[in-house]
Amino acid sequence: MTETLFIQADLLRTFSSKVFQRLGIPRDQAEDAADVLVWANLHGIDTHGVRNLKQYYVAQLEEGLIRPDAKIEIEHETPISARVNAGGGLGLAAACWGMRRAIAKAQESGSGFVSMNTSNHLGASGYFARMAVEHDMIGVSMTGYFLPQDAERGLLPTFGITPMLSTNPLSVSFPTEEEPPFLLDMATSIVPYNRIQMMREAGKPIPLGWGLDQNHQPTTDPDALYYLLPLGGPRELGGHKGYGLALMVGIFCAVLSGGWFDPAAMMKDESSPEAHGHFFQSDDPSKTDTGYVQRADAHFFGAIRLDLFRSAQDFKRGLDAMIRTIHSFPAEPGKEGVLYPGEIEYDTSQRRQREGIPIPGPIAADLRALSKKYALPLALGSRS
Amino acid sequence: MTETLFIQADLLRTFSSKVFQRLGIPRDQAEDAADVLVWANLHGIDTHGVRNLKQYYVAQLEEGLIRPDAKIEIEHETPISARVNAGGGLGLAAACWGMRRAIAKAQESGSGFVSMNTSNHLGASGYFARMAVEHDMIGVSMTGYFLPQDAERGLLPTFGITPMLSTNPLSVSFPTEEEPPFLLDMATSIVPYNRIQMMREAGKPIPLGWGLDQNHQPTTDPDALYYLLPLGGPRELGGHKGYGLALMVGIFCAVLSGGWFDPAAMMKDESSPEAHGHFFQSDDPSKTDTGYVQRADAHFFGAIRLDLFRSAQDFKRGLDAMIRTIHSFPAEPGKEGVLYPGEIEYDTSQRRQREGIPIPGPIAADLRALSKKYALPLALGSRS
Repeated sequence: MTETLFIQADLLRTFSSKVFQRLGIPRDQAEDAADVLVWANLHGIDTHGVRNLKQYYVAQLEEGLIRPDAKIEIEHETPISARVNAGGGLGLAAACWGMRRAIAKAQESGSGFVSMNTSNHLGASGYFARMAVEHDMIGVSMTGYFLPQDAERGLLPTFGITPMLSTNPLSVSFPTEEEPPFLLDMATSIVPYNRIQMMREAGKPIPLGWGLDQNHQPTTDPDALYYLLPLGGPRELGGHKGYGLALMVGIFCAVLSGGWFDPAAMMKDESSPEAHGHFFQSDDPSKTDTGYVQRADAHFFGAIRLDLFRSAQDFKRGLDAMIRTIHSFPAEPGKEGVLYPGEIEYDTSQRRQREGIPIPGPIAADLRALSKKYALPLALGSRS
Repeated sequence: MTETLFIQADLLRTFSSKVFQRLGIPRDQAEDAADVLVWANLHGIDTHGVRNLKQYYVAQLEEGLIRPDAKIEIEHETPISARVNAGGGLGLAAACWGMRRAIAKAQESGSGFVSMNTSNHLGASGYFARMAVEHDMIGVSMTGYFLPQDAERGLLPTFGITPMLSTNPLSVSFPTEEEPPFLLDMATSIVPYNRIQMMREAGKPIPLGWGLDQNHQPTTDPDALYYLLPLGGPRELGGHKGYGLALMVGIFCAVLSGGWFDPAAMMKDESSPEAHGHFFQSDDPSKTDTGYVQRADAHFFGAIRLDLFRSAQDFKRGLDAMIRTIHSFPAEPGKEGVLYPGEIEYDTSQRRQREGIPIPGPIAADLRALSKKYALPLALGSRS
């Protein structure tokens, strides 16, 4: 085991932003993207933090799979909605733009919804839902991918034997007055794929039930796991509900945004993004039987003002009271208590803000390589 | 085992409506309520069909727990939203009103949301989400209950040892062109409580993992099951996500509508429903530590027009193509194929529309008792 190092959140944010800028991302977008990554680390969502900086984002920018100069194009818009083409740019930044647009619409018109096609990896979905809370709004964020039919790994549909979907997360956040905000931020699979990778890196076995190997047998070996199971697991224990939620997320993101489409039909349509040479992750994905494909990540963002229903203060006091009531419920011996979504992550963020963000050895090596390559200072150290 | 009888959907609907009318429910509301129950039976959702007519609705109407003369009061309204007090009336009918209001708002303004307090049992949540689909809208429906702290049975929160929530269902429906609509309609527990009751009535054991007995041990005995587990089951397999979804539903329904409230504070407020003597299911519920309680079912309904984003036709063709693609995925040997939410229920409704609705012996006895008591004809028979 290599040593875990630590870095202050501010320094990690600056570093990550500068890495993105070195790769041609405009400064405001680079700062947005860095904030999404470091927020995930601060909140203990390390699966979606800077561990992905080099292996996902830098790699894809270098390979030309993410466009640093992407322009966001609004394909359709109303006072409460927009369908947006993210132009194949950095998903972390496009998603910030999308959620801000949803919030701005809600500020004007009560609610706002943005469905976004032709994006890339969103990062921690909860970050975007959480943005609405500062504005006394309910926040919703989702990202979804319907895989090509020859995908090697992914989420198995109920009764299926080949992967169909990504881990399609769903996030919903509610404002509070004194308590940390409610933030449900969940993959619709039992665990996200990055959790498996982290277990692999840590040399640990995974619990039985998270997924299956290539022979469709349950496995505890993270290297052998190919197929993730939907939340609920087998059909008898409700796995069809997790699969249904994953599909729901996929429809909000990809069908509503037009990111799931028929390329042949669109090439004939002069008004379509495809006809205009817009960018997709793969130039030749395996077609589905219907001709329709999803070629890039798609997202959905929503913001709903509390005062559509009652005063924000009344709502927030009510939710605070519900949280305190939850805390008053008796817990199993040895457990920290009965909790609510977002609570552990909030506590972690307070601690890591003070103590710094832990960076495991392999990720520290990644960051050092970026530091060297781009001649950027990186203040990794032991915890004092 | 007593014989299963059959009845035509139309006749069962008329019968149920007349039973409600005999108990003082106005005719239009009685017809709405009957349609909700028979829809559930038609679609194979027998847990929420006429099995509940005598044991839930008639019993509660006779005990005065449901008000037949309830008036719906709009407590707050905007062009896209309403907070509504259902006045302690029949939830089945109040929910039809609520969803129609959400749809009417969406027709005018693009989206519509109704949060409803002081209602009663909703019935099959999917019915209401499904209503939006006829109008080229996405439909959302939820119902939630935060239990008093001395509740005997209910959903256990993660790490908790006493029940906190009802099975808080979440339903989302999307329109299609040629395929049956997508309809996700799920309790956020592994199974709804009525499923346990149906297994008990059928004299069958339940699968291990659905819930726990009074000693917090897993059980296969439906009589011994007291505590339902959230979707996902134990923490390690994602049960905290099912619990988080159940809380989310509860907040949309009860906190947003004000159905979760502090009675002491409201009595001092002349404008509050409590001060005006509105009706609640229990006059003396056990208080929570914070003073806040939920005394009646609360619901949330949402409708979002597809053409906020793209033409309804484009969306529906895209979803049809996704459904056909889903069907083209290979399935486990012995399974009927890879399916999507709402498909089995739709097929069942087509069959039962032709063949009649099966009524198990004990439910037939209930319906016959109502038939006799209210002098209403009941055409139960064997399948021809």
